[in-house]
Amino acid sequence: MTLEEKAAICSGRDFWSTKPLERLGIPSVFMTDGPHGLRKSAGVDFTTTVPATCFPTAAGLASSWNPELLTEMGQALGEECQANNVQFLLGPGVNMKRSPLGGRNFEYFSEDPLLAGKMAAALIRGVQSQGVGTSLKHFAANNQEFERLTNNSVVDERTLHEIYLPAFEIAVKEAQPWTVMCSYNKLNGTYASENSLLLDSILRKQWGFKGFVVSDWGAVNNRPVGVKAGLNLEMPGNGGVNDKKIVDAVNSGTLSIQQLDESAVQTLALFLQTHALHKADATYDKQLHHQLARKISSECIVLLKNTGNALPLNFNSTKKIALIGGFAKTPRYQGAGSSQVNPTQISNVFDALTKAAGKQAVISYAQGYTSDATTDDKLIAEAQQQAKNSQLAVIFAGLPDSYESEGFDRSNMDMPAAFNRLIEEVTKVQPNTVVVLMNGSAVSMPWAGKVRGIVEAWLGGQAGGEALSDVLTGSVNPSGKLSETFAARLEDTPSYTEFPGRNGNTLYGEGIFIGYRYYDTKKVAPLFPFGYGLSYTTFAYTGIKVSSNTAKDTDKITVSVKVKNTGRVAGKEIVQLYLHDEDKTVTRPEKELKHFAKVMLQPGEETTVNFELGYRDFAYYDEKVHDWQTSNGKYVVLAGGSSGNLPLQQTLEIQPTNVLYPPLTRNSMLKEFAQHPKGKALYAKLMESMGSMFGGGSNSTEKLTPAQEEAKKKMQAMMMAVLNEMPVSKLVTMGGGKFTEEMLNAMLQQVQ
Amino acid sequence: MTLEEKAAICSGRDFWSTKPLERLGIPSVFMTDGPHGLRKSAGVDFTTTVPATCFPTAAGLASSWNPELLTEMGQALGEECQANNVQFLLGPGVNMKRSPLGGRNFEYFSEDPLLAGKMAAALIRGVQSQGVGTSLKHFAANNQEFERLTNNSVVDERTLHEIYLPAFEIAVKEAQPWTVMCSYNKLNGTYASENSLLLDSILRKQWGFKGFVVSDWGAVNNRPVGVKAGLNLEMPGNGGVNDKKIVDAVNSGTLSIQQLDESAVQTLALFLQTHALHKADATYDKQLHHQLARKISSECIVLLKNTGNALPLNFNSTKKIALIGGFAKTPRYQGAGSSQVNPTQISNVFDALTKAAGKQAVISYAQGYTSDATTDDKLIAEAQQQAKNSQLAVIFAGLPDSYESEGFDRSNMDMPAAFNRLIEEVTKVQPNTVVVLMNGSAVSMPWAGKVRGIVEAWLGGQAGGEALSDVLTGSVNPSGKLSETFAARLEDTPSYTEFPGRNGNTLYGEGIFIGYRYYDTKKVAPLFPFGYGLSYTTFAYTGIKVSSNTAKDTDKITVSVKVKNTGRVAGKEIVQLYLHDEDKTVTRPEKELKHFAKVMLQPGEETTVNFELGYRDFAYYDEKVHDWQTSNGKYVVLAGGSSGNLPLQQTLEIQPTNVLYPPLTRNSMLKEFAQHPKGKALYAKLMESMGSMFGGGSNSTEKLTPAQEEAKKKMQAMMMAVLNEMPVSKLVTMGGGKFTEEMLNAMLQQVQ
Repeated sequence: MTLEEKAAICSGRDFWSTKPLERLGIPSVFMTDGPHGLRKSAGVDFTTTVPATCFPTAAGLASSWNPELLTEMGQALGEECQANNVQFLLGPGVNMKRSPLGGRNFEYFSEDPLLAGKMAAALIRGVQSQGVGTSLKHFAANNQEFERLTNNSVVDERTLHEIYLPAFEIAVKEAQPWTVMCSYNKLNGTYASENSLLLDSILRKQWGFKGFVVSDWGAVNNRPVGVKAGLNLEMPGNGGVNDKKIVDAVNSGTLSIQQLDESAVQTLALFLQTHALHKADATYDKQLHHQLARKISSECIVLLKNTGNALPLNFNSTKKIALIGGFAKTPRYQGAGSSQVNPTQISNVFDALTKAAGKQAVISYAQGYTSDATTDDKLIAEAQQQAKNSQLAVIFAGLPDSYESEGFDRSNMDMPAAFNRLIEEVTKVQPNTVVVLMNGSAVSMPWAGKVRGIVEAWLGGQAGGEALSDVLTGSVNPSGKLSETFAARLEDTPSYTEFPGRNGNTLYGEGIFIGYRYYDTKKVAPLFPFGYGLSYTTFAYTGIKVSSNTAKDTDKITVSVKVKNTGRVAGKEIVQLYLHDEDKTVTRPEKELKHFAKVMLQPGEETTVNFELGYRDFAYYDEKVHDWQTSNGKYVVLAGGSSGNLPLQQTLEIQPTNVLYPPLTRNSMLKEFAQHPKGKALYAKLMESMGSMFGGGSNSTEKLTPAQEEAKKKMQAMMMAVLNEMPVSKLVTMGGGKFTEEMLNAMLQQVQ
Repeated sequence: MTLEEKAAICSGRDFWSTKPLERLGIPSVFMTDGPHGLRKSAGVDFTTTVPATCFPTAAGLASSWNPELLTEMGQALGEECQANNVQFLLGPGVNMKRSPLGGRNFEYFSEDPLLAGKMAAALIRGVQSQGVGTSLKHFAANNQEFERLTNNSVVDERTLHEIYLPAFEIAVKEAQPWTVMCSYNKLNGTYASENSLLLDSILRKQWGFKGFVVSDWGAVNNRPVGVKAGLNLEMPGNGGVNDKKIVDAVNSGTLSIQQLDESAVQTLALFLQTHALHKADATYDKQLHHQLARKISSECIVLLKNTGNALPLNFNSTKKIALIGGFAKTPRYQGAGSSQVNPTQISNVFDALTKAAGKQAVISYAQGYTSDATTDDKLIAEAQQQAKNSQLAVIFAGLPDSYESEGFDRSNMDMPAAFNRLIEEVTKVQPNTVVVLMNGSAVSMPWAGKVRGIVEAWLGGQAGGEALSDVLTGSVNPSGKLSETFAARLEDTPSYTEFPGRNGNTLYGEGIFIGYRYYDTKKVAPLFPFGYGLSYTTFAYTGIKVSSNTAKDTDKITVSVKVKNTGRVAGKEIVQLYLHDEDKTVTRPEKELKHFAKVMLQPGEETTVNFELGYRDFAYYDEKVHDWQTSNGKYVVLAGGSSGNLPLQQTLEIQPTNVLYPPLTRNSMLKEFAQHPKGKALYAKLMESMGSMFGGGSNSTEKLTPAQEEAKKKMQAMMMAVLNEMPVSKLVTMGGGKFTEEMLNAMLQQVQ
């Protein structure tokens, strides 16, 4: 391969495809947007795409807490890619929901890295099982739309490793996505597209990523620097401008040919692989995929409130039901932007429920608000009339398209005023009211206390209407749980004061305290907590067993949790396991999710769910040694069905096996000597030397008054604290020449 | 002067004095600790100091909101320095109270930079009027004791300028302290003692500081780098080690002789000045100073609760009063550490009240808790008995010495359990209970709802007992207001999750939102808000006038506030003026204190207080241009007697006169072109070019279905947002060669 050919491999041909190198038998590959459906351009117009199955978006998917379901969906997506001759599907996105206002939250999974990572890994496995590549995105610390192409995410090292990287880490380690997509933003001053810490040190070296890194569309800043940092492929094509810069960089010696070779090889391997796995003449069954979308969508739905068993609908007793709100006939089912799919068909809940009710009950409809989500008094009056004439009103609300999109963030958590007003007005005439929400991110619910039921249907995809009907009628028992906290008000959200940043910087000031980690730690009550969701049946947590009361951090610890269906219908429960650090020798969130499992239980059935706790479950990221460490002491294992309700608890004690210490330096404090295995022996002597500098060693025989004695006692207590935190180098500068620089250096040599 | 002599000027001789250079007639100067009293070593023992008047500590002083009082106190301190042949008094400290847990909060003024700066300036003026220098400390971003010698304060540029620097700025600009003391910590990676941004660019160049900078005792890390950065004097002496390093650095050329000269001249000028102003044989009147301490202390006291006029004591009707708690006889009156004064005398409230009551009432006493602040059931029983036998119980609580000190931070906001228990037990038998607190920083008060009165007496200095008696009896009407927010619970405090930092870094993650700026913005109700305090009389705010409804940001705007004493006794009110940015085009705290004035009013008297608003009152610090800017739009002027109660409001509109723009670069977004005066004209053309890259300019004649039209509309709305935030350089890299690097550079040249 010539230098020019190698450089050509570093960028695309056009918007969606790469350059074939016919001389070498290297094919072009085609990529399309879309974690929850294919968005393949059709025709010359950028906005026209081929029909494809639109599955629920990630916010909903994560609320299923069911990885198997995501794998099934991935397989279907893979089939559709094969049928459309697409080699890479650009997704999934695993960015953390730092704020409910993030414009793209609807297509991200969660505020919790474990849940997001597990769901992503499952989806990737599914897609790639069909011989189609995925692109895990947007790597990394891209948690807002505002100025996302230029913004600098300022994230401290621990927060980066504990919160913003693990979802990527889990997906890479467990599912090896064929590509990872770097994000637009800068991270701590360096563009993600030229960030060797992210693309090389962490992604390839620490996590063992084997695929290639593609730029988000237009994320390249300095192309040769990008190659050097580990960005294999620039998309879309650059018309040759950047290819030439790569050639120039190699010729001028600022980029080594070895690095370029390595980069090209990583890319080409996958290009060839996708084509080897390409299935010519592949097709897929649109009806089957629609049915799959329906099944998945129904498992994403979260029942938030159900006073007096308002749901499921019982057509035997409830003969007249009013569906209110335009979303009942024209559902909101996906978000805007690069993930916007042209669905093969669309169901709506009015049709689906009408069909389900058959002749048993009358399903009426009132529009409730205008098509652009504004209030119309006539529509409200009509809705009230319908509600009054019925035994139950079901209001469909949420967020309209214009509120949630790639490209911009929301400015608040409110639904349109017209929706809130409609709910208030209807509840005035019909107390038996249920609200169904279609939205991709948490909303505020000022009316929550006034309705009997609340159903979070998320953006349910093209079969969302039928899925909703399934849940409302009880043919599917709801089993979703919130994958993000619903705050009581915007001011309570962790990044409230610093989202979405200012003047080119976004300070991740809340650090590791995002989502429930914040609400739990700051003791701020949310409207609905992370992991929360109701069922038409009830579950009891009846027992917990931890295999050991004390264990080394490297031991495999088994936790068994017993859960029982105590209600009258079959249902699925999501068993969640959290850890709480009792001793908190380092700052930690109040608790963190470590494992989860979704189990199906028949009425009266009890099962035991087993989890295994390991090193990383107990570890925190220690910036001082740039690695994960466990801390000594007691941990409480908490299990239950919601972060807000964890009835099972068991304490165990963990002993670290491999404590890492930062090297002792001239600026190490005396207390760091005391803690360090090699410094320990020197501590007493150092304390004495340091103390004598402050007169602590004086043998004054002067008689002190009682007040002076008291003052001296106070001063000495302070002195102990002060001396312990003195850097050892002060012995030289403050010691008046008694302890020399040479003595210090000799001593430091001793303890290396 | 020889090079060696110049280097010798850069450090002290010993712990407290500098080297005389007899050959040149340069005297030694002597420095002592103590912002609220002299702590001059006496004898060989480090902890023994000469007697000096112990005034209230800064937390109390700031609660007086009375700068004139601080000037009076400064004069007295100056007199004591002259009498003791002390040339520099090391204070005041103006560090912000980032957390109520800060170990040294008691000797800092406030959570608000304006209040802290004004109080410090007043104190400095007083001391220096006596020919004695001050040392404004600890510069800067030193807001905790934990690992303060090595810790790195990570503070963003705006937060630094808006929160952590202005108190220093006000004190320097308004009072020119003869010295500024650099702090121990690092700021954004660089030790304060070698931070040229702080010591040179900001302090000298921006603020016009004329004195010399002294290191906090032991704060030097690399001495030659410190000289270069602007650190004039190292204290204490270094035994010649660092002097030699300076000589070496000059000889090797890493430090210029000009810089050393400049440094030495700045120091020597002040050494000579202090000696020129030295008053030989000066003395001071200890009794007079004690009486001044009493007057000051009484004005610092804050009446927090007074249900049913529990206070003042009326010896005509309340004949039996039980004083409960050891602090009534052995008061807590100062903090531990470098500010610990050996008082000339100590008053206690039991003696003072007994004297005040004379034969009118019986003042009894019960110890209540042990001398080391633990519970003793016998003492509690005795206290209950005394309380029951009296008409009123006054419990003295707060924080013991061991809780508050230089050198370590508190771990929570709680008083000793013994104190809380005592209060609970006494209120069970005597509902007519008043609690008096002696503490240097906010405490939690779980019993606040159960007592009739709460008095915050702070650390009241040696005359605190008499001052308290004055306030309790009503001979002084309390007029203090809180200089810091009292949070309802520790979890509510702004820096809760990041205080005091970890692994060598303290992330100032709450940014500009400290103190009331946080509680107001996050809508978290405190126990008692900033600026709050009651009086034995009442005040009504009766009118506000703003000189103009619309003004330029450079105009002088006058605000007149009318306030009236509507009660039956004379009293002082602290009129507070805040600004609220209505339009919030940039992130701002809900409101910020801009001015205050303390006025004395006779019963029925009304007065008009005038304030002048200027440029800096409306400005915020803009990191993009590294300067202060005002933002366009409406501001609300709020006035009243507490941050939590501002009955007077008036809106005005501000027009910026000098909007600063960051230069347009290759990474400027299109919207930045639209905003920039020189870029504006290019915007439409740039949008068109950028849009065409995404197919927005396509003239497709393909017929779209209604669903496709809808999808296209959604996509286009997103596109507008996306294109507006595209960096202009993408025209080159994504434009496929139509827009060249040369064209971009030519265009950028045009707009410089």
